[in-house]
Amino acid sequence: MPDLTEFSKNAARAVDAMLDELLPKENEEPKWLHSAMRWSTFAGGKRFRPTLVFAVADLFDLPAERVGRTAAAVEMVHTFSLIHDDLPAMDDDDLRRGKPTCHIKFDEATAILAGDALLALAFKAIADDDGLGTDIRLKLIAELAEATGTPRGMVAGQQLDILSEDKEIDAEELERIHIHKTGALIKFSARSAALAAGASVSDLAAITEYASKLGLLFQITDDLLDVTQSTDVLGKTAGKDEESRKSTYVSLYGIEHAKVLAADTKEAAIVALSHFDERAEMLRAIATATLARTA
Amino acid sequence: MPDLTEFSKNAARAVDAMLDELLPKENEEPKWLHSAMRWSTFAGGKRFRPTLVFAVADLFDLPAERVGRTAAAVEMVHTFSLIHDDLPAMDDDDLRRGKPTCHIKFDEATAILAGDALLALAFKAIADDDGLGTDIRLKLIAELAEATGTPRGMVAGQQLDILSEDKEIDAEELERIHIHKTGALIKFSARSAALAAGASVSDLAAITEYASKLGLLFQITDDLLDVTQSTDVLGKTAGKDEESRKSTYVSLYGIEHAKVLAADTKEAAIVALSHFDERAEMLRAIATATLARTA
Repeated sequence: MPDLTEFSKNAARAVDAMLDELLPKENEEPKWLHSAMRWSTFAGGKRFRPTLVFAVADLFDLPAERVGRTAAAVEMVHTFSLIHDDLPAMDDDDLRRGKPTCHIKFDEATAILAGDALLALAFKAIADDDGLGTDIRLKLIAELAEATGTPRGMVAGQQLDILSEDKEIDAEELERIHIHKTGALIKFSARSAALAAGASVSDLAAITEYASKLGLLFQITDDLLDVTQSTDVLGKTAGKDEESRKSTYVSLYGIEHAKVLAADTKEAAIVALSHFDERAEMLRAIATATLARTA
Repeated sequence: MPDLTEFSKNAARAVDAMLDELLPKENEEPKWLHSAMRWSTFAGGKRFRPTLVFAVADLFDLPAERVGRTAAAVEMVHTFSLIHDDLPAMDDDDLRRGKPTCHIKFDEATAILAGDALLALAFKAIADDDGLGTDIRLKLIAELAEATGTPRGMVAGQQLDILSEDKEIDAEELERIHIHKTGALIKFSARSAALAAGASVSDLAAITEYASKLGLLFQITDDLLDVTQSTDVLGKTAGKDEESRKSTYVSLYGIEHAKVLAADTKEAAIVALSHFDERAEMLRAIATATLARTA
């Protein structure tokens, strides 16, 4: 087994250094805004998506530096989505990664603006990345925008999620929500490095299939953790799904069946990687660790 | 004098057709979100920025089709900023262009998401624009992101504006707010077409200087209209600046002095255009009409 812990630590270190370089400084005006952007960006996230970017780059022997800005852009978009999803008008959450959310620590207007600014900066980070060819940068920007917006991205997923609250939804609708809300950006994370590496059509297809299953797995385990773990362990308010009467894999299938579904989904992710033989060990380790995660 | 009314009408028609093509359809899920995006995008805006894009393209003999997507992207970013600025946590405005604002017509969560989705879509519109070279598209995306975000763009300006409420600020600080909040996107509108046309360094510098003055003029007249016109004429809540105790060119200089400042700023915009002789008649007409505008 490859050392995923070490790999993740290095990925987090690399993306944090890049984020620190790209984000406006706290001593530059408007300081309050820049502090808010940095507060949420450096709040102790697991850097799951950047790790995935680097792991796919590694599979294709692409040096990590070549995807540093892409990994940072993905994390900026992820942070933007967390800040906006936590707002009172949305999921109204006070706690994230064990710390006050952006609108609690700062204020609501600043949280909206910090999210907006992070989203804009993500596209600039890729546009200015002279380590990648112009065609690839444009492809990444178009795909990242699609994974962010609507009808195929996170924003669409968040809207569907909000509209589904207090409603009975079926398995198909639940999957549709999460393919958008969680899946799209995870899929982009994996694809972005494959695109940057100039992967073949069949390699890209295998990576896309793997990432789709990984995204689904991530969401099922998220739903499981919401009911099985404490707020303390999660760093965000536990039991939130039931409280807001959201349909989840747990509410729909029950804990035991959801666990089986998670295990099956992990297997499907591994199967997608059979295309790559032993070169994809780190990606297999990521799927295994996602199934086993406790926070 | 060129026929600015006719030119603006054609510009509005062209950008509206492009926006209709690019925005997700209202009968596509999530319909509620797409309706909100279209509600605000087609709420009867004057298309000032797209008109400017097309007028600069015209100056450089660049066919209008070549900047259609850029003009649409600018209007998407402008609409995103209006939707978010109108939110209760920000300027809390119920009326925009004579109609209920997005969060009033729909709801707050949807308004936040509609703005987010429009911002992402703007970058995709340019990235996918195969009528422009790859280098130019990347340059446009980087500059648009900068004009949108922080520390040099609209988001920074809105943050500075909010922080300045209830405070005494001086002329320098007021100009700093508006260079970011209004100026950056107007400057990008003019520069984008010049960049797309492959304008020379000196041409680009003249256009940038013109657009900076035009942006300032636009803001001064905006402040004047807020106190001299009715809500009915403006299509947005009049007298809002005084009510929220915002510093404006009027509160700082008084109406008469602000009018003189507006006339001087218009002259400075015209002077910047001397670089172009008669070819820039439409841009001169835009400056003149901005000074004379009544809504």
